[in-house]
Amino acid sequence: MAHIDLGLDEKAFPGITGPMRYRPETAKPLNALAEVLLRAPHPTLTPGERELIAAYVSGLNECRFCCASHSAFAAAQLPTGMTLVDQVRADPDTAPISAKLRALLRIAAAVQAGGRQVTTELVEAARAEGGTDLEIHDTVLIAAAFCMFNRYVDGLGTFAPEGEGYEATAARIVAHGYTA
Amino acid sequence: MAHIDLGLDEKAFPGITGPMRYRPETAKPLNALAEVLLRAPHPTLTPGERELIAAYVSGLNECRFCCASHSAFAAAQLPTGMTLVDQVRADPDTAPISAKLRALLRIAAAVQAGGRQVTTELVEAARAEGGTDLEIHDTVLIAAAFCMFNRYVDGLGTFAPEGEGYEATAARIVAHGYTA
Repeated sequence: MAHIDLGLDEKAFPGITGPMRYRPETAKPLNALAEVLLRAPHPTLTPGERELIAAYVSGLNECRFCCASHSAFAAAQLPTGMTLVDQVRADPDTAPISAKLRALLRIAAAVQAGGRQVTTELVEAARAEGGTDLEIHDTVLIAAAFCMFNRYVDGLGTFAPEGEGYEATAARIVAHGYTA
Repeated sequence: MAHIDLGLDEKAFPGITGPMRYRPETAKPLNALAEVLLRAPHPTLTPGERELIAAYVSGLNECRFCCASHSAFAAAQLPTGMTLVDQVRADPDTAPISAKLRALLRIAAAVQAGGRQVTTELVEAARAEGGTDLEIHDTVLIAAAFCMFNRYVDGLGTFAPEGEGYEATAARIVAHGYTA
């Protein structure tokens, strides 16, 4: 049971979907933010890579619903699917990803710990691997945004399914996006 | 100097205003979210009270720019101005606020520490003081949103003025809002 009465069947509307139905006025900018950060055309970061950052940060925040959701969304859009997602979530240092993405994930982890944890060294390490200003900006904002989404979902005590349903939602998000 | 080249005079565009000019695509939903959370008509929470929650959480996150900004925005819209903001930021337990607002600030502090820190006890304490589902929802989301805004501002290492300029910005926000 969520902390507030969402006025709906929580099993039918798990995680963030319940509060979004409860308060469509706030759902609108939240979905628009997810769409532009994770799915809008980007010169260098694929939707799969951006969802991977979201899943990784959600894992660090121990938000089961967001982590399972964005892991599924990432897996659906990455060539090696959930295997890679699991490797990154287990240890970005040894996962088979580019040195640039690894450096961006280190920035994301710093953001999760607190904004001032992002050091010049972390930023220069990303730059040394080819990271652009836009990639650094978007990594910081994706990580920051999931520090919001994760707290929204867990702060309201919403229901998170054990394992079912996330792949079906992934197929819908990949096909139609967050603002459909 | 910010961690990335924002392409502008950082002293003229301090804090979040620089990244928002740098990336208008993400600024749009971020400003829309601030507007609906902090300024849109609300049945019970005044803009001053909602800005107070934002200032309090930004203080807990030690984000100087956001804390000074939203403290000024709260002060401009509360009968007792900055005196009350300072009292709340110093100690919500002794500040001269309603028992309901005090209970909501306790929920906000829990969200800042992590979503799962919001307990049934904290929620029931707010309810016992007359807190509604909508107030609890919005408190959780305001606190969560400032865990994002604070990390965005500090994660990019933006410039935060010592003390000047915040009151002028407050006058503009009160008059025209976040999306003008």
